[in-house]
Amino acid sequence: MKAHIITIGDEILIGQIVDTNSAYISKALNAIGVAVYQISSIQDDKDHILESFAFAKANSDIIIITGGLGPTKDDVTKSTFCEYFDDKLVFNQEVLDHVTHLFKKYVKKPLLDANKTQALVPSKATILKNHFGTAPGMWMEQDGKVFISMPGVPHEMKGLMEHEVLPRLKEQFHLPYILHKTLLTYGMGESAIAQRIETFEDELPQDIKLAYLPSLGRVRIRLSTSGALKEPVDAAMDIQLQKLLPLIEDVFVGYEENGPLEVLIGEKLTAQGKTLSIAESCTGGSVVQRFTSNAGASGYLIGSAVTYATDSKVKVLGVDKKLIDDNSVVSAQVAEAMAVQIQKMYHTDYAIATTGNAGPTKGDSNVAVGTVYIGIATPKGSTAHYFMMGNHRKRVIEKTVNKALELLHEEISKN
Amino acid sequence: MKAHIITIGDEILIGQIVDTNSAYISKALNAIGVAVYQISSIQDDKDHILESFAFAKANSDIIIITGGLGPTKDDVTKSTFCEYFDDKLVFNQEVLDHVTHLFKKYVKKPLLDANKTQALVPSKATILKNHFGTAPGMWMEQDGKVFISMPGVPHEMKGLMEHEVLPRLKEQFHLPYILHKTLLTYGMGESAIAQRIETFEDELPQDIKLAYLPSLGRVRIRLSTSGALKEPVDAAMDIQLQKLLPLIEDVFVGYEENGPLEVLIGEKLTAQGKTLSIAESCTGGSVVQRFTSNAGASGYLIGSAVTYATDSKVKVLGVDKKLIDDNSVVSAQVAEAMAVQIQKMYHTDYAIATTGNAGPTKGDSNVAVGTVYIGIATPKGSTAHYFMMGNHRKRVIEKTVNKALELLHEEISKN
Repeated sequence: MKAHIITIGDEILIGQIVDTNSAYISKALNAIGVAVYQISSIQDDKDHILESFAFAKANSDIIIITGGLGPTKDDVTKSTFCEYFDDKLVFNQEVLDHVTHLFKKYVKKPLLDANKTQALVPSKATILKNHFGTAPGMWMEQDGKVFISMPGVPHEMKGLMEHEVLPRLKEQFHLPYILHKTLLTYGMGESAIAQRIETFEDELPQDIKLAYLPSLGRVRIRLSTSGALKEPVDAAMDIQLQKLLPLIEDVFVGYEENGPLEVLIGEKLTAQGKTLSIAESCTGGSVVQRFTSNAGASGYLIGSAVTYATDSKVKVLGVDKKLIDDNSVVSAQVAEAMAVQIQKMYHTDYAIATTGNAGPTKGDSNVAVGTVYIGIATPKGSTAHYFMMGNHRKRVIEKTVNKALELLHEEISKN
Repeated sequence: MKAHIITIGDEILIGQIVDTNSAYISKALNAIGVAVYQISSIQDDKDHILESFAFAKANSDIIIITGGLGPTKDDVTKSTFCEYFDDKLVFNQEVLDHVTHLFKKYVKKPLLDANKTQALVPSKATILKNHFGTAPGMWMEQDGKVFISMPGVPHEMKGLMEHEVLPRLKEQFHLPYILHKTLLTYGMGESAIAQRIETFEDELPQDIKLAYLPSLGRVRIRLSTSGALKEPVDAAMDIQLQKLLPLIEDVFVGYEENGPLEVLIGEKLTAQGKTLSIAESCTGGSVVQRFTSNAGASGYLIGSAVTYATDSKVKVLGVDKKLIDDNSVVSAQVAEAMAVQIQKMYHTDYAIATTGNAGPTKGDSNVAVGTVYIGIATPKGSTAHYFMMGNHRKRVIEKTVNKALELLHEEISKN
C-alpha cells in the first residue's frame, strides 16, 4: 500500500516554513504499514493541484493532502476538489454546529462569515471531525484510491490523523508490518563504518535494507524491512541485529526508536534514582531544553543556569574569579568548575557544563571560534574535555549538545 | 524562472528526518528571483529518480537535487545521472585531491576505497567544489534546463549553494526581483483579521498576493510581489503597506523579514543599553534558547536559570517558601517573584519568568495542564499574567515562549 503526500501552500515553496507535517504523516503512516512513495509540496493553484492529484493517483493508493483549508483559504482547494471529483459544495449542518461551538467556547464572539462558509463541503466527501479547529477534514474515493484532505495547521492535522485518518485506513486496508531499527553511533565516520561492516552488508537478505544517515558528528545506521506478520519480521531483524551489534559495539549508543539520547539518559537516571543539573555558557540553554522538551524530565532534572556573561559565572555560579583570569573563561578548568559549582548549587548527583565560543565573533575569551570545553561532575569526581566544533554558530551549539549528552551517557552507563 | 527541488532519500519518506534543506534552498532561490514551482521528496531508486527528472523538466527551468550522494550512497544517483544524460563516469583528479586533502586534515587516516570512488563523476558534469565534505556538487544541462545535484548533508549543501550554485545561477539567467513582506501580528484570529482588512484585500493590485499564516496564537500576513526592477517593486509594496499598517496597528509587532521577535527584542535592548535575565520553569530553557540561538545575544542577555524543581525555586532563586505554600508553585505571585529574583540575581534591567504545567500530568502543583503564569520585571516594577495554553506539552511550551516574548517586547517598546 503506497501513499503520496501533497502539501499545498506557498509558505513552504518560498522557504518561510519548514514542512514538518509531512515528516509526521510519513512516520504515522509507516507505523501502520503504509509506505510513502513521494511527498510533493505544491502551490495553492487549481491547475497545479489537479496535475498533482493525477500524478499521485497514478503511482499511489492513498493520497494525503494538507493545507489549502482554513477560513481564508478554503475556496481554491474545495472548488478544485469539486472539479476533480465532479462534485458540488453542499451545506453541512454538523460542521456549522462544530464551528459555532468552537467560537462560543474560545473566541466568545459571534460567528464570522468566513467561518460560516467552512460548513460548505463537497457532497461526496466523508467529513472528518477536526477537534482543534474550524476546517473539517475530508475523505473522498475514486477508482479505489483514497484522497484525504486536512488543514495544514500542525496540531489540527495531527488530531485528524490520530482520531480519524489512521483508524479508518487500518479498517479499510489490509496493511503489512513495517519495521525500522536505527542504531545510533558516535565517534566514527560514515565510510569507516561502511568499511567495517562491509561483509555484513553484503550478506544481508534482499528484503532487509540498510542506510547510513550521517549528521553532526554522528552516524545512524538504519535497517528496514516489512512483511505480512509481525513475529517473523521481528525475528528476521533480530538475527541481523545480533550480527551487526558486535561489529560496532565500541561506537553504538542505542536505538533511535527508543527515543533520542536525552530520553535514554533520563530513563537511566530515573531508574538509578539520580539527579542532574546543567550549567551552560556557549550552548545557551540548548542542553537543558533538550531534556525538558520531553515529559518526565522533572523526575531527574533539578535545574540549570545559563551563565552567559563571564561575570555571572563568578557571581551566580560561584566560579573562582582567579581561575577565570588565569585560564581564560573558555578553558577546561572553568568548564570543570562550572560543573562542580552547579552540582553543588542544585545538590545533584550529576552535572554537565559547557563553555566555548560558538561564534561568529570572539567573545569574552580570546579563543578561536569553535573551541568548546565540556565539564562533567559525577558522584565520584569531575573532569573536562576539549573539542573543536568548527565555525558555524548553530552547528557548534548543536554538536556541543550532542557531545555533552554522549559524555553524560557514558558516565551514567558506568554504574 | 521556475525551479523544482528534488530531495532523494528514504529518511524523509519514513519521517525520520524533517526536510529542512528544501526550506533553505527555496528561501535562497527566492532571494535571487527564482520561484520554486514544486518540491518533491522521492526514493533513492533509479526509476523514481528518472520519473521525477522528466516531470520536473517539463514544468521547471532549474532542477535542484539534494541527497543520494556521499561515500555510501553515490552509486544509484550517479549511474542514474549517466543514464538520463546519456553519459558515463570518468575519473576526476581534482575531486580526488580534495578528498585526500580532507582526509589528511580531519580524519588523519589513509583514504578509504568508498571515498576514492567519489572521484568518479559524469563526464558532462561541471564539478562544484564541496568545501565541507567529500561528495562534489554537479551541474549538468539538457535542452536549456539546468540540473544541479548536491549532497544532502545540510551544511555541505549550504556551502555549495552559497559559493557555487547561487553565483552561477545569477550569472547565467536574467532574474527578476521577488519581494515578500510578512507582518507579524498577535492577539487576533485569522478570520477576524481577514474581516477587518477585507476591503484592503479586495483592492489589492493583481500582482500583489496576500496570504494568512496562522500558528500557535499568532497570525502572519504575507504580501508578495515581483518585477524586473527593484525600485518600482519596492515602491508598489510600500504603498500597500502604508494602507495596511493602520488597519492592524493594535496587533502588529514587526516584519518577519527583519528577523524573529527575539531578534527584534535583542536589537531594541542593545540599542537601549539594557540587559535581560530569564527564570524558567515550565518552558525548561526554551525561552533563553530562543535568544542565544542568535548571534549577538551576549550583548544584552546576562544569564538565566531553569528552576525545574519547586525546591530549587526557593534555594537557587530565593523565592519565599511561604509564598509558594500559600499560592501554589504555579501562581501569579510565584511567577512575579521568580522574575524579581532573577532580575536581582543577575543584576539586569529586565527579567521574564515562566511557571506553569505543560503536562502531560500534573506536577508539583495541582493546577490544570496548560495553566501558565508569566512574570515580568522591569526597571519600573513587576507584574504577572495568567494564560491557559491548552493541553499538548510541546504546544504549551511553544505558546508560552511566544507569549513571554510578546509581553517583553511590549514592555521594552514603552521606552
